[in-house]
Amino acid sequence: MVKLQRPIRHAKITNDMTVAELMDSFSGCAFGAGRLSEAVEIYREMICDEECTKFFGLAGAMVPAGMRQIVRDMIRNREIDILVTTGANLVHDIIESMGLYHYKGTDAADDVELKFNAINRIYDVFLPEEHFAKLEEKLQPLFSELPDKLSIAELLTHIGEKIDDENSILKSACDMGIPVYCPAIQDSIIGLQAWLYKQTKPLNVDAFEDMRGLIDRCYEATRTGVLIVGGGVPKNFILQSMLVTPKSFDYAIQLTMDRPETGGLSGATLDEARSWGKVGENARAVTVYSDATITLPMIVAAKNRRDLY
Amino acid sequence: MVKLQRPIRHAKITNDMTVAELMDSFSGCAFGAGRLSEAVEIYREMICDEECTKFFGLAGAMVPAGMRQIVRDMIRNREIDILVTTGANLVHDIIESMGLYHYKGTDAADDVELKFNAINRIYDVFLPEEHFAKLEEKLQPLFSELPDKLSIAELLTHIGEKIDDENSILKSACDMGIPVYCPAIQDSIIGLQAWLYKQTKPLNVDAFEDMRGLIDRCYEATRTGVLIVGGGVPKNFILQSMLVTPKSFDYAIQLTMDRPETGGLSGATLDEARSWGKVGENARAVTVYSDATITLPMIVAAKNRRDLY
Amino acid sequence: MVKLQRPIRHAKITNDMTVAELMDSFSGCAFGAGRLSEAVEIYREMICDEECTKFFGLAGAMVPAGMRQIVRDMIRNREIDILVTTGANLVHDIIESMGLYHYKGTDAADDVELKFNAINRIYDVFLPEEHFAKLEEKLQPLFSELPDKLSIAELLTHIGEKIDDENSILKSACDMGIPVYCPAIQDSIIGLQAWLYKQTKPLNVDAFEDMRGLIDRCYEATRTGVLIVGGGVPKNFILQSMLVTPKSFDYAIQLTMDRPETGGLSGATLDEARSWGKVGENARAVTVYSDATITLPMIVAAKNRRDLY
Amino acid sequence: MVKLQRPIRHAKITNDMTVAELMDSFSGCAFGAGRLSEAVEIYREMICDEECTKFFGLAGAMVPAGMRQIVRDMIRNREIDILVTTGANLVHDIIESMGLYHYKGTDAADDVELKFNAINRIYDVFLPEEHFAKLEEKLQPLFSELPDKLSIAELLTHIGEKIDDENSILKSACDMGIPVYCPAIQDSIIGLQAWLYKQTKPLNVDAFEDMRGLIDRCYEATRTGVLIVGGGVPKNFILQSMLVTPKSFDYAIQLTMDRPETGGLSGATLDEARSWGKVGENARAVTVYSDATITLPMIVAAKNRRDLY
Repeated sequence: MVKLQRPIRHAKITNDMTVAELMDSFSGCAFGAGRLSEAVEIYREMICDEECTKFFGLAGAMVPAGMRQIVRDMIRNREIDILVTTGANLVHDIIESMGLYHYKGTDAADDVELKFNAINRIYDVFLPEEHFAKLEEKLQPLFSELPDKLSIAELLTHIGEKIDDENSILKSACDMGIPVYCPAIQDSIIGLQAWLYKQTKPLNVDAFEDMRGLIDRCYEATRTGVLIVGGGVPKNFILQSMLVTPKSFDYAIQLTMDRPETGGLSGATLDEARSWGKVGENARAVTVYSDATITLPMIVAAKNRRDLY
Repeated sequence: MVKLQRPIRHAKITNDMTVAELMDSFSGCAFGAGRLSEAVEIYREMICDEECTKFFGLAGAMVPAGMRQIVRDMIRNREIDILVTTGANLVHDIIESMGLYHYKGTDAADDVELKFNAINRIYDVFLPEEHFAKLEEKLQPLFSELPDKLSIAELLTHIGEKIDDENSILKSACDMGIPVYCPAIQDSIIGLQAWLYKQTKPLNVDAFEDMRGLIDRCYEATRTGVLIVGGGVPKNFILQSMLVTPKSFDYAIQLTMDRPETGGLSGATLDEARSWGKVGENARAVTVYSDATITLPMIVAAKNRRDLY
Repeated sequence: MVKLQRPIRHAKITNDMTVAELMDSFSGCAFGAGRLSEAVEIYREMICDEECTKFFGLAGAMVPAGMRQIVRDMIRNREIDILVTTGANLVHDIIESMGLYHYKGTDAADDVELKFNAINRIYDVFLPEEHFAKLEEKLQPLFSELPDKLSIAELLTHIGEKIDDENSILKSACDMGIPVYCPAIQDSIIGLQAWLYKQTKPLNVDAFEDMRGLIDRCYEATRTGVLIVGGGVPKNFILQSMLVTPKSFDYAIQLTMDRPETGGLSGATLDEARSWGKVGENARAVTVYSDATITLPMIVAAKNRRDLY
Repeated sequence: MVKLQRPIRHAKITNDMTVAELMDSFSGCAFGAGRLSEAVEIYREMICDEECTKFFGLAGAMVPAGMRQIVRDMIRNREIDILVTTGANLVHDIIESMGLYHYKGTDAADDVELKFNAINRIYDVFLPEEHFAKLEEKLQPLFSELPDKLSIAELLTHIGEKIDDENSILKSACDMGIPVYCPAIQDSIIGLQAWLYKQTKPLNVDAFEDMRGLIDRCYEATRTGVLIVGGGVPKNFILQSMLVTPKSFDYAIQLTMDRPETGGLSGATLDEARSWGKVGENARAVTVYSDATITLPMIVAAKNRRDLY
């Protein structure tokens, strides 16, 4: 017998409403609003759970879009214990840390004209190609100081330690002692720079070495939670690390526009992850199908309210 | 020569942040956050423009999702001059006005079990079938009081006047003297009730009669703006009304998850509408590709800040 | 106990493969390929079921995209008994029937430039504005011949009878005695033409009159099947017609790119329709999430193979 | 002045139509049908261009979905010179090569029940967990035979050489001398197996070593073409390899359901890639927004027609 117990309560907008109040107002709603409200509740619970090891999977060009400060603050506020991200987000973080900007552009650009102007486009963000030349000047000397053999996370720590910008994601992670994993690091300008360096000098970065540390953290954790932005390699790399442990994630939030029906991992539901034992049978889990540049800030902003108490 | 003038400024979350402050923080961002911020700016400008006639196109099951109060408040706050919506939103509004609730359910329901329990599902909203029996009791007597011949908007006004709930969208529109257009009204339970009534008694509702009033408003307007939720018939019915005038919309905001590539009108860009002359050459226009149950409340909440000054 | 009985059989491409063979090859596949294969099987069964009344819901700009001939052939091949569509598809069908073409364009067009060239854009299709002037010349005299009072389907029949093009969808429906329903007809250029006509002369088209005929067909049918392209008003108008009968659809196929998570009717699953009793508890039903301009022709082409036997 | 030169020619279905004939029939269409037809034409040109080095980027769970044989045949038919894929596709290929099946399931499964039945779900595909135990038995001994230091592609070659199944993608690549790149190999069960092995024994797989070979191929190529399925790391890893050369891709086809508006690389348009110089200014390029399990087989099948001449 299906029970009808929770009537829809309609959201109400009030003057000078805080994001937290709006999220509370969404708690009686359905569709995206209801899911976002559920995500906020899970996030609040996860953040307040001191025995919970918090994973953050960051895919998509979130740094070019203007989400750098938010991720940096999450790290420094101890809302992230382990960061898994893409090479691209790190590259754009390092570029910004050198005082080099991304620019607001338009997706209706003439890309051939942009090419002639040496401007790279990321949807509606423009980036001067010369930034990459400056990145090269920074990274090449840095590669020459590396030990004979290291893991990807170790490489990133070396880079992070040479960053002179408190607002850098990578620097913040170094400062806070948070490991940064980036499985497909070759798939980025860092990868191209490593290729360039290896033309003339040795560099030995082990592809599998980081898994030990990541999986150890999964084994050791009392409880675990994960916030996934956009899917991709970070999503699966975090979730699969539970497969070899007797545990599974206790909290899980996914912010994505990808859809389940294509069968790809990015759009896969968190329920699917339960069949694998990646997400626990009784774990609180929700996917919000909406633009993550909107929903991530809202969740973080709505969490903050608790700081008052 | 492409100019790079506006560096991306990264959003920053502060304690107890208001929605308006978050939107302001998005103004330096790109992707969805940037577009939403642009939508807020257009909405603020449109609302403050006293010579602007404001159209609102409401498709999607926004009432079952919990957006009824927000639309009602927009009407009573004079943020809407002309409402075009679907039969479904009106049906669910009338149901709520009778004290009958929608309920939070789940999209992972067993629909055959729901059927046996006489519960109808709208994504993750549950609705008891018996509500429709009560709706029938309300509508049938009401049909018998109608004039010999009327337009769809006139039919809706007759219904709205019999609603005893200040929070009803339809009642609010009646109270404020705002016309409600619903081109595909037969495509709803109101349509089925009309069919039932016409089994035994005459009812003559003209399909085209409302166009005069709508197009007259377009002709008379000094400036026009439109906020489109979800696309569908309301979107095109509003936009096409400009085709026969020498004017075009001066402000346009579209909140949708539909995509342009399928060629359907719902996902069509507002730029496409410029080629038709529906949206003006120099009009401020933006589409936010994100769940409208999230973005509509945010825009309305961020607008409110201005009320303070 | 979950049983694993049907191993995935991988699709194989052979030389000069027919569409029917490819669809058969998909029968062992999953994701979109598996769903499309299932749709073909349902369609074959539905078409061969002589006691099945076949509904076709056609939304989206399928005529401008080049799908006119396919729909026309489906009608003349008796694969459609009842057609429900949008005003736009009919307008573009009538335009083509006058020897006026749609043109291949590009979605990366400069829409302001198009406006100055009097060219309307529908995604990557271009249409000269002057076609609408010619449409006006055809429709205005035709309106003056109409009876005092008629239904939308009757209006469309009157128009269809004046079309001199065997390839017209509307003319083909008239020739075959197939009713064409178009609930939101005002939401189209036909609507604007009716508005123009009504400036000076009376025209009384009843919004609800067609429901009787449609619902009678549902009552009378032994079995019913529906093929839905794109969702929108046609989808719901067909499905809801079952609500007032003790029956439900026995076969249902939906071809769409819309997604369920926004809660809109277009993206709603056919399972959701089971909770309402629109689609039967044991009905064969499948949704293919892929571009309908690709999947509709494939289904129709794969069906044809049976003609050989 | 915008010219209107190519009228839409409507697709026509004929009896026992081949896929190639259907694609030819799509050549006068727009939307998805038009784009797919364009993709077929580019693919035909690319395949026939003997001086073109052909890259294939394969993301998404295409092997579980039943696309293994098609990719295998593309390799053996020399339609692929360089394969970049995900660890998941390789894992599922190796599993199948051991005579272990994937099974047709349903996306409406009870995932907790599946977990209790030790069945993993990939959308509507079911996979017994015990397959991974058998994979472990195969991979662990194999790891012990590896050289002291190797690249990811070398690791994959070692595995491929031990596969005894002509239908394996990996084995076919080995047989044909085609390199297989997999940047995020740790993000897969192969990665977990490597982690397990490294608990007790050394294994040194260099993350960056493969870039040399890949980029050399880009430098050496007279012309280059790329077929991208689904986006992800394979897409960017292929495209970025051109950044350090003076060249760019001459042919590019992308099959995806991802959308541009989120700013992620998977959904990024191929025009965006022109601004970076990844795709050439005058390159023929098209993206088909439709399920790749449908469009990939269609393109390959339509290509085959040329074999007749």
